[in-house]
Amino acid sequence: MFIGVGGEGIISFGSGQPDLPPPKEVYGILPDYNGFKYGLIQGQVNLREALVKQYPRSTADSFVITNGASEALDLSLRAIALLQKKKSRKKPKCLICRPYYYSYLPLAEYAGFEPVFTDLKEGRIVYEDFAKKIKDCKAVLINSPSNPTGRVEAIETLKAIEKITERYGVYVLSDEVYKDLIYVRQNYLIKGPHVVTINSFSKTFAMTGLRVGYLWSLDKELVKQVIEMKSHTSMNTSIIAQEMAYTATTVPKRYIDEQLVIWESRRDMIYKGMVELGLDLWKPEGAFYVLPKIDNPRGFVRDMFYKHQVITYLGEWFGAPDRVRFSYALDVDKIEEGLSRVGKYLKSR
Amino acid sequence: MFIGVGGEGIISFGSGQPDLPPPKEVYGILPDYNGFKYGLIQGQVNLREALVKQYPRSTADSFVITNGASEALDLSLRAIALLQKKKSRKKPKCLICRPYYYSYLPLAEYAGFEPVFTDLKEGRIVYEDFAKKIKDCKAVLINSPSNPTGRVEAIETLKAIEKITERYGVYVLSDEVYKDLIYVRQNYLIKGPHVVTINSFSKTFAMTGLRVGYLWSLDKELVKQVIEMKSHTSMNTSIIAQEMAYTATTVPKRYIDEQLVIWESRRDMIYKGMVELGLDLWKPEGAFYVLPKIDNPRGFVRDMFYKHQVITYLGEWFGAPDRVRFSYALDVDKIEEGLSRVGKYLKSR
Repeated sequence: MFIGVGGEGIISFGSGQPDLPPPKEVYGILPDYNGFKYGLIQGQVNLREALVKQYPRSTADSFVITNGASEALDLSLRAIALLQKKKSRKKPKCLICRPYYYSYLPLAEYAGFEPVFTDLKEGRIVYEDFAKKIKDCKAVLINSPSNPTGRVEAIETLKAIEKITERYGVYVLSDEVYKDLIYVRQNYLIKGPHVVTINSFSKTFAMTGLRVGYLWSLDKELVKQVIEMKSHTSMNTSIIAQEMAYTATTVPKRYIDEQLVIWESRRDMIYKGMVELGLDLWKPEGAFYVLPKIDNPRGFVRDMFYKHQVITYLGEWFGAPDRVRFSYALDVDKIEEGLSRVGKYLKSR
Repeated sequence: MFIGVGGEGIISFGSGQPDLPPPKEVYGILPDYNGFKYGLIQGQVNLREALVKQYPRSTADSFVITNGASEALDLSLRAIALLQKKKSRKKPKCLICRPYYYSYLPLAEYAGFEPVFTDLKEGRIVYEDFAKKIKDCKAVLINSPSNPTGRVEAIETLKAIEKITERYGVYVLSDEVYKDLIYVRQNYLIKGPHVVTINSFSKTFAMTGLRVGYLWSLDKELVKQVIEMKSHTSMNTSIIAQEMAYTATTVPKRYIDEQLVIWESRRDMIYKGMVELGLDLWKPEGAFYVLPKIDNPRGFVRDMFYKHQVITYLGEWFGAPDRVRFSYALDVDKIEEGLSRVGKYLKSR
């Protein structure tokens, strides 16, 4: 359902799949590669040591390398639920900011959490509502920059969240997989004794299919529990993919800067184009998604696909039933053509 | 805890890690590899189509490629528990044959099952006890050839299990990762409407660290549920590791036959050696483990490591507290040296 299809004449605003290739260096290690044995469950030492440089007060022990950010989220939620179970028989609650990344809800439910929602306003957290609801929760999922809203939270809000979650001992899962795709400021790394930062090589280095993500946390009890679980649920993350990810950490920062310039020009084009079409949407500040309001979204998504060969995703998959998600991970020519088809369709409606 | 260490003078009977390299062909695809995009959650089509030839009445739709057999087990158990939850609020039971592979118990518990045990006799299922207990269970884990017992179930027993589990609608998770390492007969593939066969490239092709496993089932509802879960919990299995696994399926069967000859000579040596040391053990019929009875196993494992630099695993990790597990995935010279150290220690006790 969420894998964009290719093909003649199709314009896909579907999958969150960078279209530009990874830095060529990541393939450089392949011709001589000869590994095959089990790696450490926690992840290869060279990769974790390379990551230390990006995280303050950190050592290689604070990281667990995972099968993409997805597994990092899944294991963190399962580990938190397991630790909670030892303390209380009550079903724990997990706060989710709505609209949300489509996996958050099933992942929280699979792990045994009862989801509680705080609705975003203009794509951003309303702190008063957040503060009211967080007191009852054992965990919260934060995603800034956000998929699907494209918004970035104010640093002030993130600092207030650090404070209140520390006071109430709430685990914060901060999904920062778009940390290197922010158009408005540098990334702000949420910190705290029970913060778990989720990250990935998928978006920054266009390595989605290779599946290397990680979590970082200063909560030693939680990291230990995650490793224990992973030793049963999947063991080490594929050693060859980890070696490619390690190589990505050695690539000059220029690669990321150059990518950002491309993403920003795409962002400008799609935002301007949609405003000109009269659509109601939030200006994207990070990641590569827009989430405009659309009348009859199901009809829109269906017709755009079957009549105009344009793939878009229903906002309802992300908890936004009056909207449609567009990923702009494609060339500006294609964005232009896609927007023109959307315009034609909207006029004909 | 379960990763064997290397080093000067150390003999490791610890980890279940084949020491011989994979077929060289699996590295052949690397120099020209340039993939990076998301793959299908269910797994690459070429790999699933190659597997079809090994499974009767099968299509590529019956397979899900996973991060090793571990993830196949984890997802199957979670998916079964989720499907059960829709039918009944009662905590489902999972039957486990004891001694068991060390991950079975935590995986069943993580997924929300209450474990029920049937004790093996001489390392084999006692059908009467199995039949009595299975009626109350929603799932059962079968592992033939078995890690840690090294035993292979009689085909007669497996057929009786097919019959009774079909009658009571019990899901059978048949972990056959050692299917190509059987010394006494061909593998017997357990069949049935709710059978999930778990397999892997790790043992047959010595690709443990690359993490490619899979599940096969004719139960379409279950396969669908597994794919749905995997789309959130880890997405596709690493595409480069899958391509290497695909190449392994094209290697002449001679590779497997030659490996088996080596494993059998190691099996003969360790079995004969242990009998000569007066140890009480079952003759291994498959896989590469022996599980002798040892007085004071904790003292044995500790002393063998600290005083004699020999790594062994406590049977209690596998539900066999009066035994010690030896993996014989190492060269005959090392097996001989290891046995000699064990003999010296036992004499001095």
